[in-house]
Amino acid sequence: MTPDTATLDRAACEAMDRADPLAPLRDRFHLPEGMIYLDGNSLGAMPKGAAARAHEVVTREWGTDLIKSWNSAGWFDLPVRLGDKLAPLVGAAPGEVVICDSTSQNLFKVLSAAVALRPDRSVLILEGSNFPTNNYIAEGVAAATGGRVSVRLCEKDEIAGAIDADTIAVAITHVHYKSGHVHDMAAITARAHEAGALAIWDLCHSAGAMPVDLGGAGADFAVGCTYKYLNGGPGSPAFLFAAKRHQGQALQPVTGWWGHAAPFAFEPGYRPQHDIRQFLIGTQPIVSMALVETGLDIHLAADMGAIRAKSMALTDLFIRLVEARCAGHGFTLASPRDAAARGSQVSFAHAEGYPVMRALIAAGVIGDFRAPDTVRFGFTPLYTGYADVWDAVDRLVSIMDGGIWKLPEHQVRDAVT
Amino acid sequence: MTPDTATLDRAACEAMDRADPLAPLRDRFHLPEGMIYLDGNSLGAMPKGAAARAHEVVTREWGTDLIKSWNSAGWFDLPVRLGDKLAPLVGAAPGEVVICDSTSQNLFKVLSAAVALRPDRSVLILEGSNFPTNNYIAEGVAAATGGRVSVRLCEKDEIAGAIDADTIAVAITHVHYKSGHVHDMAAITARAHEAGALAIWDLCHSAGAMPVDLGGAGADFAVGCTYKYLNGGPGSPAFLFAAKRHQGQALQPVTGWWGHAAPFAFEPGYRPQHDIRQFLIGTQPIVSMALVETGLDIHLAADMGAIRAKSMALTDLFIRLVEARCAGHGFTLASPRDAAARGSQVSFAHAEGYPVMRALIAAGVIGDFRAPDTVRFGFTPLYTGYADVWDAVDRLVSIMDGGIWKLPEHQVRDAVT
Repeated sequence: MTPDTATLDRAACEAMDRADPLAPLRDRFHLPEGMIYLDGNSLGAMPKGAAARAHEVVTREWGTDLIKSWNSAGWFDLPVRLGDKLAPLVGAAPGEVVICDSTSQNLFKVLSAAVALRPDRSVLILEGSNFPTNNYIAEGVAAATGGRVSVRLCEKDEIAGAIDADTIAVAITHVHYKSGHVHDMAAITARAHEAGALAIWDLCHSAGAMPVDLGGAGADFAVGCTYKYLNGGPGSPAFLFAAKRHQGQALQPVTGWWGHAAPFAFEPGYRPQHDIRQFLIGTQPIVSMALVETGLDIHLAADMGAIRAKSMALTDLFIRLVEARCAGHGFTLASPRDAAARGSQVSFAHAEGYPVMRALIAAGVIGDFRAPDTVRFGFTPLYTGYADVWDAVDRLVSIMDGGIWKLPEHQVRDAVT
Repeated sequence: MTPDTATLDRAACEAMDRADPLAPLRDRFHLPEGMIYLDGNSLGAMPKGAAARAHEVVTREWGTDLIKSWNSAGWFDLPVRLGDKLAPLVGAAPGEVVICDSTSQNLFKVLSAAVALRPDRSVLILEGSNFPTNNYIAEGVAAATGGRVSVRLCEKDEIAGAIDADTIAVAITHVHYKSGHVHDMAAITARAHEAGALAIWDLCHSAGAMPVDLGGAGADFAVGCTYKYLNGGPGSPAFLFAAKRHQGQALQPVTGWWGHAAPFAFEPGYRPQHDIRQFLIGTQPIVSMALVETGLDIHLAADMGAIRAKSMALTDLFIRLVEARCAGHGFTLASPRDAAARGSQVSFAHAEGYPVMRALIAAGVIGDFRAPDTVRFGFTPLYTGYADVWDAVDRLVSIMDGGIWKLPEHQVRDAVT
């Protein structure tokens, strides 16, 4: 479908946009004029429906209906109802996903549950180069056991070999936040189960960007955020998946009233719910939570196979264009070259990565920088087009060819042709 | 200032409203037409500024500025900046309060920190009749120690006597959610310290409703919510207070990246911040969090002494009117009669409390019911007036005199004169 690099020009990219079955969904997002937003893997763009939904929740549900909205607007049920909406995007069944709290907190709950489920084992395995909060949280869970449990950090190719009879769980981020490499969820989960260990997946960089099959892989627990590819808004509540077989069996230590079997009976002692609600703690931030639905509804109108196909095409296109048109400018691909091994993002290493990204941002191409030398670009198939990729690379070429990245930030935009 | 009950009529209440220094603040809230809202102790009314603030956060900060808003709109600093705004309302110094997560989660953190600070002690003391989530959370913290720590539940008058050399901490809700009785924060804290124990206060039903002096009492930790008297919106993030002397010393187990000493250095191991930010975990729900400021700003325009004086006068007035005008209808005061011993709410026990409250709500007077027999009314001095109290009791009289509480719900409003 994609033309050869030699014959690839903006017109060819426009033709690909015209043939894109997902193109109509772009109109459901607000994208600032003149900006090419390649940071949806950090904070997803705003669905146009979000402003109206926020207004409704604030003025009608809170302002006018007040306390009645806990029932009449379904506030109490939001964590489960929205979890059920998200479930098909990650291969979960109804009743296996709940929306609540932050990813870090949800990871704390499921890691603690795993430790309790494997009381005679002592090691949690995580990826050392992962986004640090996962490893920090695991460190905290281990410390709380008074030294009985420890954390072992491995890199990608060491993980399967590290799993043994002392492993409580592997807790891996499915798509690496920096390189974008994809772990083999089915194989690692199978290897963990073979050793009697549990498999926990962090889907922050995969949920909404590619098909995920927690059920098919037999995953035990998962967590992830809703504000990246799911477009739920800044810091919108995260999600937590627990396979049905663990519900009511796995216990988590933050035993608040929303996780109680009878939250309104005000019983003196804690009894966990026997369903996914046992992972709830306390009152949720309703305005932020309600906005999650606006993003989910757009996803549910799209085909995940089409999203993945376009994601692979967009990232392939970006890599080819950067390597062809910025050859000699010092960019080294820092993501897998094989699209099947890559999430919906592309990273390049560049010795001057920080000023290059600063100049790109000043020129209206929003990616991000990860120390020490990585420029990172996320491609959100719901609202990023092929011509956007062309234009982004075009501005990068201009910045590199003209040495514009060396200019003070305020001079960049005028200098980019 | 308040006339005798015998000469008290609506005109007298209107005169009290005219003399009320807080009366102008009522206009800063949206109160639904025809409704008398006496449930601000459960969910505070909506500040009129909330809709515009939500619109700004969603459309400008998220929609247009996108990822840049973490810095340009100060999203990263919100927990501390808003904590500093809240601090004077609870007698805390700048840097002692942070806004984040839910009350239950924050209680988990500070109880866990207390357990770690007193490794050779084994008992947490809480009030047995308190709102259950506090006791559930303490149960979870104790369970996580594998039996080393246990929870002892006492009632009000037993607490001071229960504190001994094995006490880790007392963790008491300052104003009881049901009866509204106020604990003596200074005396219980002093007694705890005398025994070498810590004092933790839950301010859910006092923050914003009465002067609280955490610093003066020497409290160690505190938690509380922002969606009751502080009008932050449904499920808005809670607050956490840690006295300066404990910061960097007390450790909490949910060690996420927002609590790291260098959150953006992406270090391999966790190092806690040495200030209040050590109690943060992960990304906060920004839209819900931003709305907290709208409520706080109204509070900061009011004098807390005036709020308390009006709160005592409103609750006194309500008790006098109910007892005088509903005499013989079976209401028994279930809150302290002495206003100084009472928060900003009044509860009555009534054998038919449930249908009575249902009828009152149908008649536009919003209070709530707490099993088995308590009707509970909250009085928010910022937006509740003396004539509101008169009108609420007037409707109650009508419902009781006419036996209207026995009618089906949909017939109530027409039947209330």
